Amino acid sequence: MFSDKLIAQIKKKRSLVCVGLDPRCEGKEAIPNFILENCKHNPNDAIWQFNKTLIDATHEIAVIYKPQIAFYEQYDALDALKKTIDYIHSKQGLVLLDAKRNDIGTTCDAYAHAAFNLLKADALTINSYFGIDGVAPFTKYVAKGKGVFLLLKTSNKSSGEFQDRFVMENPVPENKQLEIAVTDTKLIRNYLLMTRLMRMWAENPKNLDNADVYGQEGYSSIGGVVGATYPEQMKAIRKEIPKHFILIPGYGAQGGTAKDILHGINADGLGAIVNASRSINYAFLLSPYKDRFTPDQFGEAAKIAAEDMRAEINTEIEKR
Amino acid sequence: MFSDKLIAQIKKKRSLVCVGLDPRCEGKEAIPNFILENCKHNPNDAIWQFNKTLIDATHEIAVIYKPQIAFYEQYDALDALKKTIDYIHSKQGLVLLDAKRNDIGTTCDAYAHAAFNLLKADALTINSYFGIDGVAPFTKYVAKGKGVFLLLKTSNKSSGEFQDRFVMENPVPENKQLEIAVTDTKLIRNYLLMTRLMRMWAENPKNLDNADVYGQEGYSSIGGVVGATYPEQMKAIRKEIPKHFILIPGYGAQGGTAKDILHGINADGLGAIVNASRSINYAFLLSPYKDRFTPDQFGEAAKIAAEDMRAEINTEIEKR
Repeated sequence: MFSDKLIAQIKKKRSLVCVGLDPRCEGKEAIPNFILENCKHNPNDAIWQFNKTLIDATHEIAVIYKPQIAFYEQYDALDALKKTIDYIHSKQGLVLLDAKRNDIGTTCDAYAHAAFNLLKADALTINSYFGIDGVAPFTKYVAKGKGVFLLLKTSNKSSGEFQDRFVMENPVPENKQLEIAVTDTKLIRNYLLMTRLMRMWAENPKNLDNADVYGQEGYSSIGGVVGATYPEQMKAIRKEIPKHFILIPGYGAQGGTAKDILHGINADGLGAIVNASRSINYAFLLSPYKDRFTPDQFGEAAKIAAEDMRAEINTEIEKR
Repeated sequence: MFSDKLIAQIKKKRSLVCVGLDPRCEGKEAIPNFILENCKHNPNDAIWQFNKTLIDATHEIAVIYKPQIAFYEQYDALDALKKTIDYIHSKQGLVLLDAKRNDIGTTCDAYAHAAFNLLKADALTINSYFGIDGVAPFTKYVAKGKGVFLLLKTSNKSSGEFQDRFVMENPVPENKQLEIAVTDTKLIRNYLLMTRLMRMWAENPKNLDNADVYGQEGYSSIGGVVGATYPEQMKAIRKEIPKHFILIPGYGAQGGTAKDILHGINADGLGAIVNASRSINYAFLLSPYKDRFTPDQFGEAAKIAAEDMRAEINTEIEKR
C-alpha cells in the first residue's frame, strides 16, 4: 500500500520533506555551467548528472521525490526522467510524478500506464475536473501499490478565481433549469466541494480496484494537493479529510513557511508531505546558502537546505 | 492568427470535421495486424505508418487533426507523434494537441514550450482549474499564431459531478468565512462559471501577449471544449461565447449525433469543430464499414467515414 510505504519513509527519516526535481538548463536558476559544458549541452545527460548528485545528497532526508514532468518534456529528456526514477528506486526512495493528468476512459488508462508502468512512478498528481470517470482509471492502481494526489486548493495567487467560488453543497438534478434562484441553502467553496468528492471517491473500494480503503497505518493512498500559501483553507480541508495525505507545494520559493503548513499535519505527525523544488535544487544560488557554496558544491548546498527545511518543520511541530 | 487559419480550412474543405489520431497497438480497436508485424511490433514505426495512411486518406476532409498525447506516451512513441505533426504540416494541415495540460508559472511555460515549440502543435487543450495563472502562459502564444482550448463541459457521463454544481455568479472576498448561508442570490452551473471566466480571460489582450482579441474573421483563438453528449449545456455555453470556437468531442463512438451538435454551430456555419477519433481511425472494424473494407483498406474506410461525417453535419446545418 502506497500510504504505508510513505509512512515508513517518514518514520525512518523523521522528515516530511518532498524534494522536487525541476531541472532547468537556462535562466537565473539553472543547472551549473560546468555540468552543461561537461555534457556538451545535451539536456538528457546534464539533467541526469544534476539529478543524480541531488539524489545522492538528499536521499536520507527526502521521503519522496517529485519530478515535474513538464521540465523533462521541455528538453525532450524523458530518458533522464526514467534514469532518475530508477536511481531513486535503487536508493529505496519513492517517486511522485507531478503531471496533473486528466482525461477519461482509455485515454486515462494510457496516461496511467505511461506514469505507473512505463515510468514506474509510485504516485501521480491528477486534476479531477472530469469527475470520477477521470479519477478511477488512476485510483484503481491503488491495488497495485500506487498513490494518487488530486488538486484541491492550488498554491498560486489566482487559484481563488475558480476554486474559491461558493457552490451548493448538494447536487441539483439535470432536468432542473440551468439557472436557478435560491432562497435558503448552504454554500461551500469549490475547493471544499472537490475535497468532499475526493473523500467520497476514495472511500469506495470499487474505485480502488477493491484495494483496502485505508492502509495498515489507517491512511488512504489517495491524497490531495493544497498550497502552503493558504493556511486557513488548509485547516478546512484537513478537517474534511483527516486520513488522507496532503501534498503541500509552495514552501520556500513561493513563500510558504513552516508555520503556514502546520494545519496540514495531524497530531500523529503524519498526513502531509511538504514539497520544495527551487529552494533545494538551486540552493547554491540562493540566500542563505549562496555565500557558503560554489556551483560545484550544489549537491552539498541542496543537502543542507533539505536538512534545514526538515528541522524547521520538525521544530514547529514540536512547539505546538 | 490561429482562428483565421482554422476558418480558412473550414471554408476550403466545407467541413467541421476534426480527426482524432489515437493509435492503439492492442485491444479490439487497434492498428491492423499487418502493420504491427511489418514494423516488428515497434510502436514508433507502427504508429507512424498507421497515422501516415490515415492522414493521406483524410487530409482533404479534416480541418484539423487532434492527436491525444496519452496514446503516444503510453507506447514511448513521441517520435511518431513528431513525425505525424510534421507530416500534417507538409499537407498544409493544422494540429490540435490534446494534452489537457495544467500548472502554473515556469512549469506552464515548460509545457507550452514542449507543445508549441518542440512538438510544433498549432493548438493545445488545457484545464483551467488553476485560474489565469494556469491559462496565460498558454494563451500568450496566441501572439505567435497558436490556439488554446479550455475544458468547459466534458463529454463523459460523470462530468456533472463537479461541473454541473450550482455556484454563485459573483466572487465573495477571501476575508469572508469559508461557509456562508445565502438568502437571495443567483446561481449558475460550474461549467458556465468556467465559460464566463474563459471569456473574461480571452478578452484581455494582456493574457494574449497583446495579440488581437479577435481575428480578421471576428473569432478568438481561444476556445472551449464541450461534449456532443450535452446539447442543452452546449446551447447555454454557445450563448455566452458566440465568438469563440467550441471543440466538440464525443461524436460517433461516444454517442453524439449531428443533431446534438447543432447548438454549437453559429448561423455563419462557424464557431465549432467536431472531433471523431475511434469511429474514423478504426472505421474498418466498425459498422457500417466493416463489411466493405478489409484491414489493409483501413485508410479508405477512414476516408469514407470522415466524408460521411462531414456530410451528416453539413446536411443538418442546411436543414435548420
